[in-house]
Formats: sequence, C-alpha cells, structure tokens
Amino acid sequence: MTDSPAEPWEWTEPTWRRHVHRVRAGRGLLPRQWPGGARCAVAVSFDSDHETPALRDGETRPGKLAQGEYGARVAVPKILDILRQHAVPASFYMPAVCALLRPWEARAYVEAGHEVGIHGWIHERNALLPEATERELQLRSADTLEQVTGVRPVGIRTPSWDFSDNTLSITREMGLLYDSSLMADDDPYELLEDGEPTGVVEIPVEWIRDDAPYFMMERYASLRPYTPPREVLEIWRAEFDAAYAEGGLFQLTLHPHIIGHRSRLVILRELLAHIATHPDVWCATHQQIAEYGLAHAEPPPPATGASR
Amino acid sequence: MTDSPAEPWEWTEPTWRRHVHRVRAGRGLLPRQWPGGARCAVAVSFDSDHETPALRDGETRPGKLAQGEYGARVAVPKILDILRQHAVPASFYMPAVCALLRPWEARAYVEAGHEVGIHGWIHERNALLPEATERELQLRSADTLEQVTGVRPVGIRTPSWDFSDNTLSITREMGLLYDSSLMADDDPYELLEDGEPTGVVEIPVEWIRDDAPYFMMERYASLRPYTPPREVLEIWRAEFDAAYAEGGLFQLTLHPHIIGHRSRLVILRELLAHIATHPDVWCATHQQIAEYGLAHAEPPPPATGASR
Amino acid sequence: MTDSPAEPWEWTEPTWRRHVHRVRAGRGLLPRQWPGGARCAVAVSFDSDHETPALRDGETRPGKLAQGEYGARVAVPKILDILRQHAVPASFYMPAVCALLRPWEARAYVEAGHEVGIHGWIHERNALLPEATERELQLRSADTLEQVTGVRPVGIRTPSWDFSDNTLSITREMGLLYDSSLMADDDPYELLEDGEPTGVVEIPVEWIRDDAPYFMMERYASLRPYTPPREVLEIWRAEFDAAYAEGGLFQLTLHPHIIGHRSRLVILRELLAHIATHPDVWCATHQQIAEYGLAHAEPPPPATGASR
Amino acid sequence: MTDSPAEPWEWTEPTWRRHVHRVRAGRGLLPRQWPGGARCAVAVSFDSDHETPALRDGETRPGKLAQGEYGARVAVPKILDILRQHAVPASFYMPAVCALLRPWEARAYVEAGHEVGIHGWIHERNALLPEATERELQLRSADTLEQVTGVRPVGIRTPSWDFSDNTLSITREMGLLYDSSLMADDDPYELLEDGEPTGVVEIPVEWIRDDAPYFMMERYASLRPYTPPREVLEIWRAEFDAAYAEGGLFQLTLHPHIIGHRSRLVILRELLAHIATHPDVWCATHQQIAEYGLAHAEPPPPATGASR
Repeated sequence: MTDSPAEPWEWTEPTWRRHVHRVRAGRGLLPRQWPGGARCAVAVSFDSDHETPALRDGETRPGKLAQGEYGARVAVPKILDILRQHAVPASFYMPAVCALLRPWEARAYVEAGHEVGIHGWIHERNALLPEATERELQLRSADTLEQVTGVRPVGIRTPSWDFSDNTLSITREMGLLYDSSLMADDDPYELLEDGEPTGVVEIPVEWIRDDAPYFMMERYASLRPYTPPREVLEIWRAEFDAAYAEGGLFQLTLHPHIIGHRSRLVILRELLAHIATHPDVWCATHQQIAEYGLAHAEPPPPATGASR
Repeated sequence: MTDSPAEPWEWTEPTWRRHVHRVRAGRGLLPRQWPGGARCAVAVSFDSDHETPALRDGETRPGKLAQGEYGARVAVPKILDILRQHAVPASFYMPAVCALLRPWEARAYVEAGHEVGIHGWIHERNALLPEATERELQLRSADTLEQVTGVRPVGIRTPSWDFSDNTLSITREMGLLYDSSLMADDDPYELLEDGEPTGVVEIPVEWIRDDAPYFMMERYASLRPYTPPREVLEIWRAEFDAAYAEGGLFQLTLHPHIIGHRSRLVILRELLAHIATHPDVWCATHQQIAEYGLAHAEPPPPATGASR
Repeated sequence: MTDSPAEPWEWTEPTWRRHVHRVRAGRGLLPRQWPGGARCAVAVSFDSDHETPALRDGETRPGKLAQGEYGARVAVPKILDILRQHAVPASFYMPAVCALLRPWEARAYVEAGHEVGIHGWIHERNALLPEATERELQLRSADTLEQVTGVRPVGIRTPSWDFSDNTLSITREMGLLYDSSLMADDDPYELLEDGEPTGVVEIPVEWIRDDAPYFMMERYASLRPYTPPREVLEIWRAEFDAAYAEGGLFQLTLHPHIIGHRSRLVILRELLAHIATHPDVWCATHQQIAEYGLAHAEPPPPATGASR
Repeated sequence: MTDSPAEPWEWTEPTWRRHVHRVRAGRGLLPRQWPGGARCAVAVSFDSDHETPALRDGETRPGKLAQGEYGARVAVPKILDILRQHAVPASFYMPAVCALLRPWEARAYVEAGHEVGIHGWIHERNALLPEATERELQLRSADTLEQVTGVRPVGIRTPSWDFSDNTLSITREMGLLYDSSLMADDDPYELLEDGEPTGVVEIPVEWIRDDAPYFMMERYASLRPYTPPREVLEIWRAEFDAAYAEGGLFQLTLHPHIIGHRSRLVILRELLAHIATHPDVWCATHQQIAEYGLAHAEPPPPATGASR
C-alpha cells in the first residue's frame, strides 16, 4: 500500500501529505434544520450481504453459507415488518449477486418504499483490486440492481467499507449522489479529492453504529459475539441521544444475517421505539439525507483545510 | 474450497449458483402446534466432546486433556441431575471415541431417557477430509454408538458444525432422520440437495445459542471467556421468549466441559426454571422434534426457491 | 505432540487411550468435613511472575518489564495487607528468577505465614522442553526457593499451567506432596500416571477462577481486558457460593501484576469480605488442603476407571 | 530482542539481571500533599494521533485515514470544550506529522493552557528502530513542535508506549523533565538507568486507564470495541476513587479519534463530573505533576533496590 520502498518514517513530506489528502472531508452538509423543522435526522441502513462475504473469500462450506441464507430467509421479512410498523424508510445495500439470487427480495425493498444502493458485485474488497476491475464490477453492480428493481441506484456503500484510492473517482464517473463508507464525521459532508470539492456527499458510517463488530462470529478466527445485545442498545441509544441533542444525524448500519436473530431484533425494536418517543425527528433514506443536505447546507467556507 | 483457479469475483454465474444451491433450506417443518397443544418446543442438546477436540488437533498435553476430562467426571453427573429435576429430555451428541472411553456414560444417557446422536469419530473436521474418509468415520461412529448403547442413532451433529459438501449425501445414504448442524432458520426445515428435497430434517443450531463462543478459553489463541454468564442467560432468555411469542422452536447447544462449571450451571438452572414458568411448552429430544415436524408440517409449497 | 505421523482420526485405539490415560484424575480427596468442622475450604493463590513471562519469551523491552515490575513494587505490599486484614493464608508460586531478583519478597511471604511453591525457573513452558531440561530446571527452582526462604517447597504449579508428559514423573521423583496445574475437577483428587495411583494430590485450577483470562493485555496480540471487574467478581462469587453449597473447595489463582491494580483490588477485597460472611469456611494454603485431603479422604474405590 | 542465541531459560544470571535493570523504577516522587493542600492529583492526557498510527504501518486506504481524521475534525473541538467547562488543564501528545498537517490544532492546545508533548514523528515504533534513527526522529519531533507552537516540549510519551533500550538515554541527552510511557507504579517515580538515578521523572500510564484497549476496532485483526462504555466508566471511576483514598495520582490516556465519539464522550463528561464532586483534587498537566513531584518528594532512601 506504500508507493515507495521507504519506511513510513522515511517518507518525504509530499508523500505523507499526498496520502492524507487523497480523499478527505470538506464542508459540512448539515442543514440548519431537516424537513418539517426536524432537529435530528435518522438514517437506518441494512447491508443485505447474506452469503456473499463467505463467497467473496472462496468459502463455500454449506455451514457458512447457511448462516448467510438465514438473513434472506428469516431476517429480511421480520425487518421489513418492523420498519413498516415504525414507518421508517431505510436504505438496503445489496451485492449484485444477492439481487440475482433473490430478485424478489430486491424488489420487495423498493416496493416497500426503501432505497436500494450499490454494495459491490460479490462483496469484493476494493482495496485488493486493480482499478479497471473495481470500475467494471461497480458499474455492473449498478446495472444489475437497476435491471432487477427498475430503479437506478444513486449511492454506494463499499463492501466491508473497503474504500480504495480509486473508489471516489469511479463514483464521480458514475455520477453518483453519495457514498456511505467513510468515517471522518458524524454528520454529512462533501468529499474532497486531492483537495478539490467533488460534489459527492458522504453519509458517514462508524463501527460503533454497526452490528457486526459486537456480534460477528468467525469459528476459525477469534471473533466472537462477546458484547451483550442490551449493552449494544445502550451504545446506540447514547449515539442517538447525542445526535438529537446536537441536532445532527444518527446513522446506523445493520446486517440481516447478524441483527436478524430473535434475541437481537429485540434491540432494534427498542431502539426504534426509543427514537419514536422524540418529536422533531426525520427518518429518511440515505438518498433523502444526501439530497436534502446538499440542497440546504450553508455555502462553503473559504478553503483553508481547516473545515468546520 | 473453490473449484476453479478464478477469484470469486471472476466466477461465472453457474459457479456461484452451484455453491449456494449445494445444500439449502427447503420447506419449513414447523407444525401448527406441538404435541399436547404446546405452542413452543424446546430442544436442549449437549455435545459430550470431553477430550476429543484436543485429540483431534493432535493436542495431547495432560493439561488440555484434563479440561476435557472435567466434562465427563464432574459435569455430566450434575447435568443429568438438573435434567431429571426439570424433567427435560435432551439430546447428547458424542464422538465415538468418547463412547469407547466411557461406555457407562453413553449408556447413562439412554437409561435416563435421553437421545444419543452421531458426533464424529474423534471430533474430526469433515471439511478437511476426503469423502471416503468422512463416510467411513461417520458410519463407524454410528455403529460404535449402537454397539455401546444398544440404540441406533437417527441424527447427526457434525463436529464443530463443520458440514462438508459431502455430508448431506452421506447422511442420506445412512438413512438418517435429521441433521443438526446448519443455521438457515430458527425452526426446523427440510434440506434441499442441489435444489431437490431430501426428506432429511434440519434442526437448526446457532452460535448465539451455544455456550462455546462466550466461554471458550484457548491459552495460545485469543479466545477468552469475556462474556459474563448472567449476560449469556439474558441472551438465551430473549431467544426463548421470542420463540415462545412466535410459537417456534428454541434449540440450545451446550458442552459438559464448558457449561458444566459451578458458576455456569447457575444459568442453565435459571434458564430451565424460566422456561418452566411458561405453559404450553414441549421439551423434547431433537429426534422427537424432527419426527413430529416431518409428520405434521404443512404440505410443501410449489418450488419457487423463495420458501416461507 | 503426536507420537506418530498419522492424523488423529487414523490413530489406533491404543494410541488415543495411551494419551488420555497418561495423566488422569483418580480418587477424589474431598474429606467429609474440613478442620474445625468447616463445610467449605478456600485456597487463594498468587503466581508472583512479575517480569518472568516477558523474559521467558525473550521479551526485554523496558515497557513490558515495567508492567511486571508493578507486581513486585506496588501490588505485593497491598496484597499482603489485604490477606493480613482478612487473616487469609495464601500460596505464592514464584519463579526462581523472581526469588533471586527480590529475595526479600520471597521471605516476606514466608514470614507472613504464607506458602511459597515452585513455579519454574523463568516461567518456562514445560511442554516445549526436553525432559532432562525440565527436570534440571524444576530441581534448581526448588533448591533456589529453599535457599532464599529457608523452607523447602512441597508443591508445584507449572508455569502457564503447561504440564508436559514428563511433569508428573519429575514431580514424583522429587517427592512433592501436590501439583496445582490441572483442571479435571473442582475438588482435590489423586493423580494417576498411566492408570496407577501416584499419591500425588492435585489441587485443581481453572481459567474461570484466574484473573489473567479476563484482564490480560497483549499490545501486539488480540488480548484485551474486555470483561468488567465487577462482572468477574460475580463469576468468582458464584463459584464460591456453589462450592459452599456443595461443601467443596474454592480455589483461586491471581497474579500480583494483574489483580494488583487499584480498580481490581476492589474485587479481591469484596470477594474476601463476601467469603468472610459465611460461617464454617476454612481458608488454608494449598499445602494444608493437600495434606488434610490426603489424610482424611475416603478409602479408594475399586479401580474401575469410572472414579467418583 | 535477546542479546545471545541462548534460550531465555539458558541465560546466565548477569544476562537476565542486565535486562531487568536496564530501565527501572527508583524512588517514589509522591509529595506529602499536592499544591493547595490537595490530597489527590489528576493528570488527563490525549494522544492526538489522528492518521499517524495508520500511516506508520504504511496503511494509506482512505477509509482508515478517515477514521483518524475524525479525531481532528470532530473530536478535538468537543474535547477542548469539555476541558474548558471543567477547567481541567491537560497534556496533548502529538506526532510531529500531525502538528505539520494541522498547525492550528497544536496552537489551539497551547492557547487553551494545555501542554503539548513529544509523541514521535509519525507514531513510529521505537523498539524497531536503530538508535540513530530513534534519536534523530525524537529530536526532529521536539523541534517541530516548538516551531509550530512556540513552546519547547519538556516531556515525551513514546508512540504505542514502545519504549526501546535507547529511549531513556536519548531522553536524558535531550534534557527532558519527564517520560510518560512506563507502568511500574501508579504514582510518579524517578527512572533508574542501569541502576543509577537519572533525575528523569516517570508519570506512569496503564492500559487500564487508556481508551484504546476497550474501544479499538481493527477490521482485519480481532480487535473489537467489546467493552460497554458505561463499564469502562466504572473502571476509571474505581481507579480515581482508589487514588483519592490513597492520596495518589490518577492518570488517564485518551485518543481523540477513539474517545471522541458521541457515545463515548458521555463517559468522559461523567468522569470529570465525578472527579469534580471531590474536594482537594489538583487537576494538572503532566509537566506540572512532574515538576511538583520532583521538587517536593521525600529525600531518596538508601539504595537497596527494594524501594518503597
């Protein structure tokens, strides 16, 4: 990943500056208020990966694949029910292979009023791919989702949030509205490429607001679901409460095959119920948040590098 | 584990479809109600592995083996007492080597009314074995259990839930009633092999409802018993409560040498006491669940691939 | 660690039987009651390893060594105070190198009425050593402790509980009363070597009742102190409560450089205070437990292999 | 890291003694009381690493760098607010590359009355560097911080607390007042080099009082934020409470990009509020603690090696 044989402590100043400035946070895109005068926005998302993270690793054991199958078979219908009950529109990021395996699932998302976004071909890791391969897969993924659902996706979440040095330029080429894979802020911002504003909105994510770090189980690695679900609920509640107090965005990333188990859906229901007790909250898709943020943000400050 | 030199993102559509469809969940086998009008079934199981996971890895240090010996020496008698006090029949999956080391233990399970099922020869990992070796060990294991206990096993739980591409066809050859190693649902279902119904019932398991992920200790790896037992009890209680509310199956996998310690048996007792406060619960062996599910399930829906 | 090129699932029956029977639990050594009519015995121990686990790995960075130094400099004086306040005699297992680095510490243990036992030369891992090296180091360690403290140790705890195939025969050669490194029971038992009673008492340990699994921190591995101390206290309290209810032994293994921090000594104090609220508890050194168990145990049952 | 081909258990006594005595804790530097008659001192610090731990590893993926960027963009302004509200002066350790990337940030620390200390060039690991490289980087880092902030740093915290065999001699050459990277005590002490007092103060740190062990997330390793923040608060509160009871020092190490998230700043606020309820507490920079400790400590005891 280095561009020279030198050790990092031997890098010249232009080298480390270039790395740091390759993709960077620009002006904040938090509007004064959200639609309807809401003081806080909530963006719930699901990465409907199912079997693809296993396939991506060449892992084809039936046991591992069945774990992913659970997401499609059991979790998705329950999740759609919960979202309907709480009238929460969500964004579903779906690898194209998943959309081809179960086109009815992709269409069900759209029919229920949710967004479907790009999430790679087979959950490939972009940072390991040549640029041409990454571009071809990202384009093919968008085409596939459009063919299956009838709606052209406008946003991308890179699989495993593995954003390569080329992801942003491919995303710009494709004319996408937003990315949702980076972590430089809690609130939406504009992406800079080599220091230049791109017009691409970032809807930032965080491991803290992701179910996988707490609950993932990898039999032959050391990942275990060590954190109790009710403690995870406390964490997400604290994230929302602070977003509400600040008047910001609360963004959440879940996976049907992880959160969709009986003992874990409990906390999704409780979290949505907690949010519902607050007035002035706008629950929206990532697309809606990006569009609104871009349209209503303050004009950009003079470029100092010290944004915000 | 891949069948071609190509990277997974280069696989042709028939390749990834074949992998995903090798072993898959078919029609659900949840009856309208369980025997006696029960609304919820409870299937408790123990993998009586004792020393065999260590031996399987060629690990013969006395310290490691003593950890397994604890299961047979201290934990099993206490577990049998607890099950008797709560009148809960359970399923014990026992590697054949364990049944040969302590035939009295295998017989004690049967005499107390519990089921004994196949769990490999020496807890070998099926996915690492040639098909012929896997078949020979699985057959020999069934024969050994029958010779020791006088009862022919009708179900299998693969050691480490390591279900190979060949496990299902071997299981069909042997005419077994059920498998209990996969995770595509919470409730029983019929297994499909290459898309075809097999008549083999799956009693699904989950790491969530297993004691090992939370409590396992591997000195020279990074596994530690980080989750407090009382938090694990909360998780299992939430799993049962949701199964009860849905009218489904609550299945649990425990290991004598893991759950059988003083501070952990506390939560097994509390869990069974919690379950006992609910009317209309049928506690049964995996065999009973499989037989009843198969006999009373709804007729299969037309084959669309989108079961349920 | 295998004695043949065969894979474990190819081992002959004599092979796996020989491994399992190399060192095994024999008759239980739990007396009907403990001295003074006590119904429960408590054996608290400390492995005073300080810098030696780091040195054993050739790890000589000042940062790592300072972590061990904390044990001797800060933790030991506080621990001795706590034990004095609760009038609890304890067993300290000390690598010989530690006794040479700080002879005054080893003598302070003895002067306060505690036991000092063998814990290797420099916390070496026995299972990696040739038999002759293991023997020489174990003998030299005993001689060193005797020279420093004036008392010949009668028990051994193998460093890292790494008990080799030769440890028991060396321990017998040395005429030791007991070992405290194995885990086949909660209560004391007699060790069998190749099926034969040895007269050597085992005071069993468990990772559950050890501070290291919950609290150890290895910067360049994945070990972190993830479990909150107050949850660890709950676990140990549950272990004691069950030992008290059963009329058994509660044994605990702590490390000054781990438990001896301000936020962790809180739970040691609370645990000892909890124990102190129970009548009929005998707090004793491992040596005292071993001697009393050996002298007052029931006569051995006929040798069936199915002990207890 | 060994200085001979021998295995550690074959080392001669001079070898292991030399390693242990290379850098060691000398006389304690805890004054009878702190300024204003305070009975307890509180030293809060932040390692403002931002992107540098990633860069140090040659890790230049935009996703990883954005995680660090969050520290500078979002966390630092909030942290400065919190410190101002509680009137707590703190010490910020900043890699020189960070000070060059955002000079306004380094100056903001100084303008708000906080200390800025040395924290390497690009968060390099000292123990992996030749002595000349370590020296050159440490000197260049001090010069850079002085150029940026106008204040010459008087203390060092080694990146990753990775203190090499040469760090102390370089620190002495530079005439620094103190180091804050070692763990042999809770309270300040004087460092010994090869047994000789150096006049360099150690303000000791501990993983227990660091946010990284509990919260760090490494996608492709096994580090996860498994410990709930409110449990971490309990641990830090217990550390402070015991320091207060003993009349000692409570030192804390935080990272803007780790602690600075919404759900985690909650516990920093609660901790500072908890501390504020105690009279007789002196909140000070590490520099102030070191100066006061050095000036007011008891005279050194006769050199016995058995300090305290």
